[in-house]
Amino acid sequence: MSTVEKQLDDLKAEIAAEIPNDISVSDVTYEGPELVIYTRDPKKFAQNGDLIRTLAGKLRKRITVRPDPDVLARPTDAEAQIRAIIPDEAGVTDLDFHADTGEVVIEAQKPGMVIGRHGSTLREITQKIGWTPEVVRTPPIESATVSNVRNFLKQEREDRREILERVGRQIHREELSDEQWVRISTLGCCREVGRASFILSTAETRILIDCGDKPGAEDEVPYLQAPEANPLNSIDAVVLTHAHLDHSALIPLLFKYGYDGPIYCTEPTRDLMGLLTLDYLDVAAKEGRTPPYESEMVREALKHTIPLEYGDVTDIAPDVKLTLHNAGHILGSAVSHFHIGDGLYNVAFSGDIHYEDTRLFNGAVNEFPRVETLVMESTYGGRNDYQTDQADSEQKLMEVIQETYDRDGKVLIPAFAVGRSQEIMLVIEEAMREGKIPEMPVHLDGMIWEATAIHTTYPEYLRDDLRDRIFHENENPFLSSQFNHIDGGEDERRDVTDDGPSIILSTSGMVTGGPIMSWLEHLGPDPDTTMVFVGYQAQGTLGRRIQSGWDEIPMNGRGGRSDTLSLDLSVETVDGFSGHSGRQGLVDYVRTMNPRPEKVLCVHGDESSAQDLSSALYHKFDMRTFAPKNLETFRFR
Amino acid sequence: MSTVEKQLDDLKAEIAAEIPNDISVSDVTYEGPELVIYTRDPKKFAQNGDLIRTLAGKLRKRITVRPDPDVLARPTDAEAQIRAIIPDEAGVTDLDFHADTGEVVIEAQKPGMVIGRHGSTLREITQKIGWTPEVVRTPPIESATVSNVRNFLKQEREDRREILERVGRQIHREELSDEQWVRISTLGCCREVGRASFILSTAETRILIDCGDKPGAEDEVPYLQAPEANPLNSIDAVVLTHAHLDHSALIPLLFKYGYDGPIYCTEPTRDLMGLLTLDYLDVAAKEGRTPPYESEMVREALKHTIPLEYGDVTDIAPDVKLTLHNAGHILGSAVSHFHIGDGLYNVAFSGDIHYEDTRLFNGAVNEFPRVETLVMESTYGGRNDYQTDQADSEQKLMEVIQETYDRDGKVLIPAFAVGRSQEIMLVIEEAMREGKIPEMPVHLDGMIWEATAIHTTYPEYLRDDLRDRIFHENENPFLSSQFNHIDGGEDERRDVTDDGPSIILSTSGMVTGGPIMSWLEHLGPDPDTTMVFVGYQAQGTLGRRIQSGWDEIPMNGRGGRSDTLSLDLSVETVDGFSGHSGRQGLVDYVRTMNPRPEKVLCVHGDESSAQDLSSALYHKFDMRTFAPKNLETFRFR
Ligand SMILES: [Zn+2]
Ligand SMILES: [Zn+2]
Ligand SMILES: [Zn+2]
Ligand SMILES: [Zn+2]
Ligand SMILES: [Zn+2]
Repeated sequence: MSTVEKQLDDLKAEIAAEIPNDISVSDVTYEGPELVIYTRDPKKFAQNGDLIRTLAGKLRKRITVRPDPDVLARPTDAEAQIRAIIPDEAGVTDLDFHADTGEVVIEAQKPGMVIGRHGSTLREITQKIGWTPEVVRTPPIESATVSNVRNFLKQEREDRREILERVGRQIHREELSDEQWVRISTLGCCREVGRASFILSTAETRILIDCGDKPGAEDEVPYLQAPEANPLNSIDAVVLTHAHLDHSALIPLLFKYGYDGPIYCTEPTRDLMGLLTLDYLDVAAKEGRTPPYESEMVREALKHTIPLEYGDVTDIAPDVKLTLHNAGHILGSAVSHFHIGDGLYNVAFSGDIHYEDTRLFNGAVNEFPRVETLVMESTYGGRNDYQTDQADSEQKLMEVIQETYDRDGKVLIPAFAVGRSQEIMLVIEEAMREGKIPEMPVHLDGMIWEATAIHTTYPEYLRDDLRDRIFHENENPFLSSQFNHIDGGEDERRDVTDDGPSIILSTSGMVTGGPIMSWLEHLGPDPDTTMVFVGYQAQGTLGRRIQSGWDEIPMNGRGGRSDTLSLDLSVETVDGFSGHSGRQGLVDYVRTMNPRPEKVLCVHGDESSAQDLSSALYHKFDMRTFAPKNLETFRFR
Repeated sequence: MSTVEKQLDDLKAEIAAEIPNDISVSDVTYEGPELVIYTRDPKKFAQNGDLIRTLAGKLRKRITVRPDPDVLARPTDAEAQIRAIIPDEAGVTDLDFHADTGEVVIEAQKPGMVIGRHGSTLREITQKIGWTPEVVRTPPIESATVSNVRNFLKQEREDRREILERVGRQIHREELSDEQWVRISTLGCCREVGRASFILSTAETRILIDCGDKPGAEDEVPYLQAPEANPLNSIDAVVLTHAHLDHSALIPLLFKYGYDGPIYCTEPTRDLMGLLTLDYLDVAAKEGRTPPYESEMVREALKHTIPLEYGDVTDIAPDVKLTLHNAGHILGSAVSHFHIGDGLYNVAFSGDIHYEDTRLFNGAVNEFPRVETLVMESTYGGRNDYQTDQADSEQKLMEVIQETYDRDGKVLIPAFAVGRSQEIMLVIEEAMREGKIPEMPVHLDGMIWEATAIHTTYPEYLRDDLRDRIFHENENPFLSSQFNHIDGGEDERRDVTDDGPSIILSTSGMVTGGPIMSWLEHLGPDPDTTMVFVGYQAQGTLGRRIQSGWDEIPMNGRGGRSDTLSLDLSVETVDGFSGHSGRQGLVDYVRTMNPRPEKVLCVHGDESSAQDLSSALYHKFDMRTFAPKNLETFRFR
């Protein structure tokens, strides 16, 4: 009998001893990090309100209880009963019964009303029908990404269960090594921005954290060929801090290279990763580059993803517990905390962070039970990288909009689909609602609409007061009537061009392709239009050129003609909407961190930024700080 | 056609173009780092004195010329001619003809007389008989180790040639990677003494430097399971700095684990490694431990060894050239200098060093064409690790010997077989020759005699004035008549005990076993005997206990009785004969190093010694210094 088998037998006995005699345990298995208990008495389990929580505490495991298949009500009967229990206002849009696991997935517009106070409605459902309900939100704005991902996972349910069982056994395997050490190897994003990738390793376990590309340097990928990462199938787990491509682009590639294990991230990160990596393949194809992997690999990645919620302490290896915390950077972004061994060591990877609250997100979490080493981003860690206060930036943006409106012009804002667009939407929505600027249409072009739809699907990940507004006051600013999805292509763009004043948010954020190119053609020659840059424009991009004053730009006209376009529109730059903390925010993050780490590795910043930040933290806080290079390995224990 | 094949074809054409028309080139192959040219005209090649050197310079390769087998004189004729050419005083003791390579190995008591001025006698031999002569020294004292190694290699000649051809092709393979980086990974001996082991790696090549054990901690072996070292058969080359077991003990284990490549070291290091690792297996067996490998693996290691001379610049990988330099520590010990890429980077590994001249060796070399990083031993790097001046130590030792002699007693010196014994022998021999102490027998017991025999076989590796004395004045101090090899076992020891005053040098150096245990039984109760400690006594050894005053020691009597032995002999300690530089010597090594390196990694010392030295070098010389931990990886380019 394998040790995992033996372990499960022991657990089964322990559970049987813990629970009342009249509740049976027919089977106990692992699915990913969870312990799944099958019972012929799901209703009694549900009646004993705290039983599961008590068990979880005793066994120190995450526990799911499922009914034995032969005690389930028939789906047609069950459906009728579920609809009777759940109030109509919950807006149930789909019910999906999975006889193999006894789960019923309930998709509803208001998941809270399906769950009930402290889960009371859910318990009532189980007591009546035996099935275990699982609730997901119906996206308030239809999101192709969310529904594609959900449909795909539904369809791959069996494969997925196999994966989860395999991963579960891996996680709960017996520890083989009695060596004790903790190492971090840098595979990318050291003294540079881009290709984020790290290996966290112990004698027992290897974890890959992020695996991104380097924008503008397609051949500079993470050093996956480094011995510390090889063979790839020896890696136990991949953790993705957030969906930006400089962290996620090459995650699907891992599966092409033989990785077959889990990816841990938040649910929105999973969906955004799907959206952004597919777009990444698209762009590569359009630019005539050979994409490094096929879309099939994106599906593999999705299938292997185990979503975690902020704050859940999760076993991901025999000697490693992972907890994700809000990072304030983009939807679902996570500071990833690793607890290693039984109190041996603790490491936090910041991923990308915004320390201060923004309109969209709470500031990044920096409280942990313990943490000895922090691996920290340094994008704006340079000694002069102070940022404009966002209130001032908003003020300036409103002035630009007002002036443009006054001359009957349009405001054209190139923006990244994920994060900054939604922040700007919130700024504009509030200003219009409060009468600070006149009401006018706000057109969303490119992936922005889709990204916004994903945001509305996961309000739990938004800033607390925004979330409250959405939940309690039923006031979702993203659903405001002025927002218009450009889904009519060139015809609609021409109509908007001919219409009166409006605001247009369009990808790509650095004017390197996408619908913004059309908008430039339409509005570039219009002196009443103002183009406003609200995000960083990298060296070599068209955005950077326009920002610095170019007024003749090359355009690929229809039919392959190569034309020049004269720009007559005004150009403005409004800083201060970054998803990254500036120098002050980064220092504050460490200053107020609790507990304060002993060591900080400054990464994800160009050489001078990383070194400046490293030196500043050392002098301010008398801690050991480093600005590693790629391909180095640090040992902590 | 493989790229190596193509390369050899090109070389053949290039050589043909360079040499006179009347000299043919029948074949060109690689054997290890050497390019071997086969010719049907070996005599003409030999006549053109500088031809080989010119070719070597042009092709930037080490070149050996061999006759085509069918132009060789018959061995019997050839032997007669060789004996006619070489003067009788050369003392030829063996001639060995290898028809497959056209080489004749000439073993002689005076190799210099076989070689002749600037190689003139060798050239004369080739001109007469076609065979390529190779000269080795007949050990002046018969050495079982040297003759076993030579016989073994003779017997494995065919295997060895295959290995060399394979290695040659590996070394001269085409470079695959266009990445440029240089890393060092620490697999052992960081913040500790023992289990020396490092990986030096580039995108193209991996080199393992040393692979030793940790005395007194048999389970703490180098971290060979670290990914940086795996798979072991991906390692291109092993470099062994010297034969001490904390550097060499686990080299044979590599072959058990699948390594099948070359080992580079000096010739005496090869022989001493054979001696010491076989003894290591013996001791393990005697102590009832399971040896980590079988003696067969020692033979594998010997078979894969490619000996290098100090100063030879040798290609060991497409992008790495190795040069060994005298380290002053033990016979054959080498500072190992790596030149990487075409001027990309230079790293020197000190191995263990003695910076100042000793009686046995010149001080460690610290001049290099270039060197950016030095990996340096720190055994006595602590702030208080200053050593007694050797002249004072010698003075004190002579006083102890004189006093003991005066009371008709014996001097018993526990000593390590390799290095310190020979240094003490030289001190005693001089003192007697100069009449500073009376002449008396000096008995050598345990492996000391054998180790001394190996020293006499390689006088080129000894200090220059000692070498000169041996070569020119025909005065080999190791052959002095007072030295007596204890080869008659207990009978002889009893005779010595009953005889008058004498000096006894015996292993083991820390009184942890070996014949010193017998000597203790014989002389321990004798108040006229003086036991003199001349080397470091580790915590927990019997030597340390006696040194600190114990006068009742447990002994395993004959027939398994466990007895107690009362010690009545005097005990003295004479410091200052270390094979390691003290703190001052280590600092001086760096101070006078030319050029001075940018970075120094302080290793091979306990935590405080390594950190003290690192800090001292940083403050004195304003260089980047580190005291790495095991399992770290540093990137330099
Ligand atoms: Zn990001
Ligand atoms: Zn990033
Ligand atoms: Zn799979
Ligand atoms: Zn040594
Ligand atoms: Zn050593």
